[in-house]
Amino acid sequence: MIKTLEINFAKSYPIYMGLEVLRTQLVAYCQGLKERLVIITDSHIKNTLGLEVQQLLQGVGLSVELFSFPAGEAHKTRETKAQVEDLLFAKGYGRDTCLIALGGGVVTDLVGFIAATYCRGVPVIYVPTTLLAMVDASIGGKTGVDTPFGKNLVGTFYQPHAVFMDLKVLETLPEHEWCNGIVEMLKHGLIADAALFNALKTQRAKLKEPQFLLEMIFASCVIKKNMIEQDERDYGIRQLLNFGHTIGHAIELIEDYKISHGEAVAIGMLVEARLSVLSGFLEPHVVDEIEQVLRDYGLPLKTNAFEDIQRLKALLGLDKKALANVAQFVLLDAIGVTHFENNKHVVAVKSEILDAGMVNI
Amino acid sequence: MIKTLEINFAKSYPIYMGLEVLRTQLVAYCQGLKERLVIITDSHIKNTLGLEVQQLLQGVGLSVELFSFPAGEAHKTRETKAQVEDLLFAKGYGRDTCLIALGGGVVTDLVGFIAATYCRGVPVIYVPTTLLAMVDASIGGKTGVDTPFGKNLVGTFYQPHAVFMDLKVLETLPEHEWCNGIVEMLKHGLIADAALFNALKTQRAKLKEPQFLLEMIFASCVIKKNMIEQDERDYGIRQLLNFGHTIGHAIELIEDYKISHGEAVAIGMLVEARLSVLSGFLEPHVVDEIEQVLRDYGLPLKTNAFEDIQRLKALLGLDKKALANVAQFVLLDAIGVTHFENNKHVVAVKSEILDAGMVNI
Repeated sequence: MIKTLEINFAKSYPIYMGLEVLRTQLVAYCQGLKERLVIITDSHIKNTLGLEVQQLLQGVGLSVELFSFPAGEAHKTRETKAQVEDLLFAKGYGRDTCLIALGGGVVTDLVGFIAATYCRGVPVIYVPTTLLAMVDASIGGKTGVDTPFGKNLVGTFYQPHAVFMDLKVLETLPEHEWCNGIVEMLKHGLIADAALFNALKTQRAKLKEPQFLLEMIFASCVIKKNMIEQDERDYGIRQLLNFGHTIGHAIELIEDYKISHGEAVAIGMLVEARLSVLSGFLEPHVVDEIEQVLRDYGLPLKTNAFEDIQRLKALLGLDKKALANVAQFVLLDAIGVTHFENNKHVVAVKSEILDAGMVNI
Repeated sequence: MIKTLEINFAKSYPIYMGLEVLRTQLVAYCQGLKERLVIITDSHIKNTLGLEVQQLLQGVGLSVELFSFPAGEAHKTRETKAQVEDLLFAKGYGRDTCLIALGGGVVTDLVGFIAATYCRGVPVIYVPTTLLAMVDASIGGKTGVDTPFGKNLVGTFYQPHAVFMDLKVLETLPEHEWCNGIVEMLKHGLIADAALFNALKTQRAKLKEPQFLLEMIFASCVIKKNMIEQDERDYGIRQLLNFGHTIGHAIELIEDYKISHGEAVAIGMLVEARLSVLSGFLEPHVVDEIEQVLRDYGLPLKTNAFEDIQRLKALLGLDKKALANVAQFVLLDAIGVTHFENNKHVVAVKSEILDAGMVNI
């Protein structure tokens, strides 16, 4: 039960997804490589899945080292990047090295960035270990680190050589991590695929059944694939993937990242759906429908971020899509259909509408 | 008296070279940009040419800030990169920023790397202020910083949007800086253009005459252009540009960068020419010819690096072209002709030949 997807840039790369993809596809792929292999993961994963993957590869006679850095977004920094680089240099790794990023989005973002600049670029393979990383971080080539001035402010666009999504690794995924991934999948449905949204809405009980889950991940990846291929560097249609994130990122910042990414984006999607209604694009009942699905998946949809609207609005002006400090939003015309106006995928929303839309759920 | 050259990658970019290119081409080019402009230079250049270029641009109504970092290779580090980034973030610069790198190779390498990763990539314009930066660092898109493990170990391939080489800025160039550039031009002649090598050899007295100098810079840039366009990422023919640098980089490291790059590469070219003779590819008298030209240009060709051959060889094994820690050299068949064997532009040289070749001049 394996599906593959090919991402087409100047250089194409495959995504393998299914059960036992590590034991089969990853091993076979690595046997075909000439590069020296290094697995880089975080401190949580190292002694469990890290050792497992290392042993899988060693089992077919490949020589592969396993390095880790401290787990958590707080370590997705320029300093961690430098430490990992120096570890690799100290061990004598050169351009003939292929990094294997094993972990969630923090790991794939950071290791992708290391690969992009190590000896001016070495190949990298992604093995995402969370649902969120599978449907989001591991596709599209965005890499980066956070700085005190904001998230992902320093990084590159750098495509991996291959991605391996093994549903087996999700068996131990904590419930709140499932939520993070489901929110992004719902987002993909809301911006481009009503059937995906409806399947996630009506067949919630089947989500952890491998066959259904695989279909949902595949559909979600197809939507992201279509957008990033058209717009690798995020100046046009790729911005649609930011639905829910304009508000979501501001909430994360105000909550000092103590709220989960999925929770923040879920609230962001609801508010941005409401802005779509207030702008006259979306029928009001759709907001209730989205809220019900999010609640069904167990998202509490609670934040204190709306208590200081002025601060929230100031942060929105610093969003990367903002033009001259005016926030630009992805808005919906219907489920699966985004609003397109003046040849643009984003819309500047009037201050009164913002005030009316940004209230607690 | 202006020549232009177009470098053709997926995106092409122009190189303008000649007298008064800053006053004419640079100003006109910047007037056509929508981005916010920031000049980044080093502490030596800031208050002279830095202010001049800033005033040139302000003179036509452009708003442009001028930042600097401490001059010298010792500051081409990840730490300086982070400091400049944080300065830009603190001033609120976003993706709508174009950096102008004004300086020698340290500045173009560092600012190019900053541009490559700032908000995942912003445009950069190079204004090289040394002959070396004109014929080498500013063409080809290599960016990077040094680490304690070696030079340029962390960086990217990132092409500038345009390059402006104004011969006027060379009028104040110190003599040893001329040598650095001349060595690279001689190198371009040695690997691909016997006529360029012979012109530099026989018409040394004319070198600082603008018309002749422009021809030499142009010829030198054409050679680099041809190689980098075929091989942007340095896996094949571009490696020829490393002639003299395999040994040269190791010498710089052993001398703790107290030797100039030109001097180190000059010795490197001589030793690598000698390795070409010892390998049976090159006629012995060519080594004498190269040495004579280098001496005529005033290069002392002295280093203590050969006193510890074991350390030198260990460093060679860490060279970026090395395969499994075995150094790979660009060797010559004749002036203007490099050795090509087994479908490769580089050759692994036997340890005995290395020992015989790596002695003082």
